[in-house]
Amino acid sequence: MKQRLMTPGPTPVPEETLLEMAKPVTYHRSAGFRQLLAEVTEDLRYVFQTANPVLTLTASGTGGMEAAIASAVPSTGKMICLIAGRWGERWRNIGKALGCEVVSVTSAYGQPVEPNQLAAALGEHPDAVAVCATLCETATGVKNDIAAYGKIVTGTNCLLVVDAISALGCVECRTDDWHIDLCVTGSQKALMLPPGLAFVSVSDKGWKVIDAAAPRAFYFDLRKYRDALKTHDAPFTPANTLIRGLRLSLKRMRAEGMNAIWTRFARMAAAARAGLSAMNLTLFASAPSESLSVAMVPEGIDGNALVARVEKHYGVKLAGGQDSLKGKIVRLGHMGYIDFFDVLAALSALELVLLEMGHSLEPGASVAAAQRVMAESINVGQGVGNAARVDR
Amino acid sequence: MKQRLMTPGPTPVPEETLLEMAKPVTYHRSAGFRQLLAEVTEDLRYVFQTANPVLTLTASGTGGMEAAIASAVPSTGKMICLIAGRWGERWRNIGKALGCEVVSVTSAYGQPVEPNQLAAALGEHPDAVAVCATLCETATGVKNDIAAYGKIVTGTNCLLVVDAISALGCVECRTDDWHIDLCVTGSQKALMLPPGLAFVSVSDKGWKVIDAAAPRAFYFDLRKYRDALKTHDAPFTPANTLIRGLRLSLKRMRAEGMNAIWTRFARMAAAARAGLSAMNLTLFASAPSESLSVAMVPEGIDGNALVARVEKHYGVKLAGGQDSLKGKIVRLGHMGYIDFFDVLAALSALELVLLEMGHSLEPGASVAAAQRVMAESINVGQGVGNAARVDR
Repeated sequence: MKQRLMTPGPTPVPEETLLEMAKPVTYHRSAGFRQLLAEVTEDLRYVFQTANPVLTLTASGTGGMEAAIASAVPSTGKMICLIAGRWGERWRNIGKALGCEVVSVTSAYGQPVEPNQLAAALGEHPDAVAVCATLCETATGVKNDIAAYGKIVTGTNCLLVVDAISALGCVECRTDDWHIDLCVTGSQKALMLPPGLAFVSVSDKGWKVIDAAAPRAFYFDLRKYRDALKTHDAPFTPANTLIRGLRLSLKRMRAEGMNAIWTRFARMAAAARAGLSAMNLTLFASAPSESLSVAMVPEGIDGNALVARVEKHYGVKLAGGQDSLKGKIVRLGHMGYIDFFDVLAALSALELVLLEMGHSLEPGASVAAAQRVMAESINVGQGVGNAARVDR
Repeated sequence: MKQRLMTPGPTPVPEETLLEMAKPVTYHRSAGFRQLLAEVTEDLRYVFQTANPVLTLTASGTGGMEAAIASAVPSTGKMICLIAGRWGERWRNIGKALGCEVVSVTSAYGQPVEPNQLAAALGEHPDAVAVCATLCETATGVKNDIAAYGKIVTGTNCLLVVDAISALGCVECRTDDWHIDLCVTGSQKALMLPPGLAFVSVSDKGWKVIDAAAPRAFYFDLRKYRDALKTHDAPFTPANTLIRGLRLSLKRMRAEGMNAIWTRFARMAAAARAGLSAMNLTLFASAPSESLSVAMVPEGIDGNALVARVEKHYGVKLAGGQDSLKGKIVRLGHMGYIDFFDVLAALSALELVLLEMGHSLEPGASVAAAQRVMAESINVGQGVGNAARVDR
């Protein structure tokens, strides 16, 4: 059976990238690798929408988050964590593990953290040194308003540290314009790669804090990555086959352009949400991200069984809920190398299984609703997938 | 021109492994991934020669080293670092970055740290909580006597923490028999994979210390990896395509057997050293590792130019010296998916370039000397390369 990976990460990797990474391994202390790293670093700046260098770490996304805190927040430093779900909680857990004082500002699952909550917390904790936020809360599908947070934080001495892991590269993220001081993402989401790389951008304001801080890490000391980058080098043996693949992903994204990419995913997300609603499902996120759509599992249906059956019968891999949301929601990822026709397949499979499981819906309503959204927003000449394969 | 990667890491990756990793990416929160992780963890125990679980981290080898220190050495804890080169220095640098008190015990470059130096240091510093050592000092080609260190450390409250990165999987390393409490390696050396994974084994004595310590890291907290492994899971999104490749490497190694592997590399190393000596080069390491051979560049020859020319004219990628050894030594890696015939090619290329550069040698003497070593140690039916490709 044809398999379709539609989780909110990892996401499918383009075939040409898989083959590029399958070429023989090369030595990384070489002119060829330095040229590669220089090129991807330049293209990452474009994708991050930043004038600052973007650092490439060999680690999962959480490793990038830990590097941000270990580098920019001194031990016993106070962090304000904006928490709208499991991934916001990750900031809190990292901060606590690293000895920081954590102030948690939470929203109900399915809701974003409101900018005025942040303003109030900053008023109460003027000694905070960092505000940690999540662009897309992958656990609930909520998008937080980072631009609004940035306006609040920029006038303070605080750093704005953002987990953009399941967003950057498909959801609008303007690192510099939004005053994000440290922006973290990973390879296995919108960047169309396997897991294994984390990326962190750092603003001038961020570097001032980092350079003044006592080191708390070695492998996760961001200064080492910045300093090595001055000669287009990596401080530690990098996952260089993944970086070779990254080059192709970034070329693709540059060829399409960030505005076009953001528009394409917004359209796809609107179609997905229309499709989910049309099969009588309630959307879970009040402010949904363009990178995934989350629906509540209808009462009387076991969400785990639903997700398992969609995979077993139709080869479509969706994700269920985590922690307290286990069995209660279904998550459909649409980022990276996923196009509208893949979304259509996922909606079709989900509709068929919901019918089997006794949920009341009108067969065909979902895919028709999604298709209507695409038709209404059509732009002649604009496709529904990534830019064509680019010259290597 | 045909390329041969002969650096002491990264090393070549078997073609079947490259293709295995090029298969479509899958979701890691699945029964299939748990089965894969259970299987590689079991096989890693065999390759490490340990009864304890071996933890798989997404990071460079240095990340594994940082995780070992962050987990097992409390801040302000005293570490004895046995330093025979750049990689021994890395233990010191990690310890210092993490706030530990570091006692350095050094040897001259090219010499191992003698066990009696360790005994003396332990006598002077009975409050030390960890001894950090390096099995193979990749900077100089020296092998340290970990078994002897283990006999000294095992009766104390200290932990023995070993960097076995450019050794484990080709150089004899008996984690349990040698009383290694934390043993670290990486994917891109003897394990025949691209860079991106680090592995850490922990003894019962090690876990007692780790469990009693306050956490100092989140991503690098080894307890999280152990706890997740109880359900064959990874605590953070793992570099799962590399883990898929790892499965094949470990199957190969298991099919051949560790004793046979160690013997094969010892033979290959003896042949390489005979070949280097026969071209009138002085070997650099007084106690050489079986994983690489290091020779001094003859006076009057620029070592950087030598290494560059061997690559440019013959496609053989050797490594030069680092830091104070820059231009002074040439390093020939023979680990992982490198066989005797590759070593023969490297000796041939090096001989030809040395002749071009005016070094006095007898053409053919090097390859003949290497060949003689192989002939003298021949074992009917035993090949010179890895075990045949195994059933998948």
